[in-house]
Amino acid sequence: MDITMCEKEEQLLCNRPIGVFDSGVGGLTVAREIMRQLPNERIVYFGDTARVPYGNKSRETIIKFSRQIVRFLQTQQVKAIVVACNSASAYALEVLEKEVDIPIIGVVKSGAMSAIQATRNGKIGVIATEATIGSGIYNRYIQAIDSNTVVLGKACPLFVPLVEEGLWEDPVTDEIAKRYLTELIDVGIDTLILGCTHYPLIRSTVGKTMGPDVTLVNPAYETAHELKRMLQDMGLESGHRPGLGTELYRFFVSDAADKFQKFANSILTYGILSAKVINIEEF
Amino acid sequence: MDITMCEKEEQLLCNRPIGVFDSGVGGLTVAREIMRQLPNERIVYFGDTARVPYGNKSRETIIKFSRQIVRFLQTQQVKAIVVACNSASAYALEVLEKEVDIPIIGVVKSGAMSAIQATRNGKIGVIATEATIGSGIYNRYIQAIDSNTVVLGKACPLFVPLVEEGLWEDPVTDEIAKRYLTELIDVGIDTLILGCTHYPLIRSTVGKTMGPDVTLVNPAYETAHELKRMLQDMGLESGHRPGLGTELYRFFVSDAADKFQKFANSILTYGILSAKVINIEEF
Repeated sequence: MDITMCEKEEQLLCNRPIGVFDSGVGGLTVAREIMRQLPNERIVYFGDTARVPYGNKSRETIIKFSRQIVRFLQTQQVKAIVVACNSASAYALEVLEKEVDIPIIGVVKSGAMSAIQATRNGKIGVIATEATIGSGIYNRYIQAIDSNTVVLGKACPLFVPLVEEGLWEDPVTDEIAKRYLTELIDVGIDTLILGCTHYPLIRSTVGKTMGPDVTLVNPAYETAHELKRMLQDMGLESGHRPGLGTELYRFFVSDAADKFQKFANSILTYGILSAKVINIEEF
Repeated sequence: MDITMCEKEEQLLCNRPIGVFDSGVGGLTVAREIMRQLPNERIVYFGDTARVPYGNKSRETIIKFSRQIVRFLQTQQVKAIVVACNSASAYALEVLEKEVDIPIIGVVKSGAMSAIQATRNGKIGVIATEATIGSGIYNRYIQAIDSNTVVLGKACPLFVPLVEEGLWEDPVTDEIAKRYLTELIDVGIDTLILGCTHYPLIRSTVGKTMGPDVTLVNPAYETAHELKRMLQDMGLESGHRPGLGTELYRFFVSDAADKFQKFANSILTYGILSAKVINIEEF
């Protein structure tokens, strides 16, 4: 009797969705990877569009905002949380891990691991927001695993607005990429971490600028992989694709649902039906 | 006896500071104009650096944020409020006017008035954020005064990040300006409103692109002028420069005071001693 109850409970837990959050739309590149690699999992996505971007904000503010979002996701009965924002992973993940009782992973550790596996000459570059670079988090993770590796970080504040303006392949983006990336080329890195969730969308521009000998690492891929491994290890994986009538993916934002939806539909491979606006400051 | 009390009261009221707010640093171009034209007035400035920018956010969110800021400024005993942000002026001013019992002015009406006075061919352009352009507010104000005037609005989302990245005079900014402004040139406008407080900082780029026959209108100038007129009319003008030991200007932000201070010092003609961080969500 007890065992049956327990199995039922566990089954319910397995069927709960994954919570994924980002400062805005960028984290959809991570959600997209999770959808690809874990097609049986339901997702509750939150984009903090009222307070986007996080990349130019302070540690304290990023932690405060992330805490509110985690509290909201917990009301959605999520079984695990993915911090699909590098700035929030950099500053808030370690704090959040201590505060919540469900598994929570960020994008930084996965990105660092992939880069270490990819580098041949031990010189790794990281491009990201000011917040992520300022935190030194990629450096810390990489050095902790292999202290012989050299890590060079470069903040690229214009990349996010350029992506959001749709200039994914454009001479202006080429020019800005050249300016930001020259010093990384000069140092001779052979691996570059795309340390902001918007950057995979200008992957071809970055790749063209860096040249064919530099491996580009997209932490989204490895994050989805790590999530899968973790869910398996903890017995939390959903065993089957939810049936028809079950809402597979739900999207919440703190502002401007229409705009979010439009951008989401340009990134995801299927159409989002709707995104719901919530008042995140209440959480 | 009563008269003396009243005079004293009024004197106190006169000596109170002006509240000025913006989504971030941009409003400092308005504060700078007020400092120039009203050197006797004290200023309390608030920049919402935790939630900047407003220009890509919805009406509801901009009103909510503006209300919180007005409540904060009222705790600072301000005698009047200047909404030094076009997006907030566009969406929140009319709501706020009904809710507060002190005079409150925005930058849009002043900008519209100046443009009408400046145009000769009745074709006025407005460049601003998506929020301000989407609101149609400049169009409404201008048409209400002169319905024969043609108003053409153009959102320029990359201008703010370019200014914040320091590319005030740069080939990239030239190129982006060309793309945004060509349709305004083609229509033959003779007057262009710089409808975002960041834009005066790239005035020379915009001027070069538009050519010498187009008059650029900076609403900051006219806003300070209107504020002066209003304070005089209401008998609220400060009669003398506050004595030594009185803090003339005070700056508050919702995040990252250091960064604000650095930017402020590049705009203002004197050094800011410090900016204080407050939790704006509490108001």
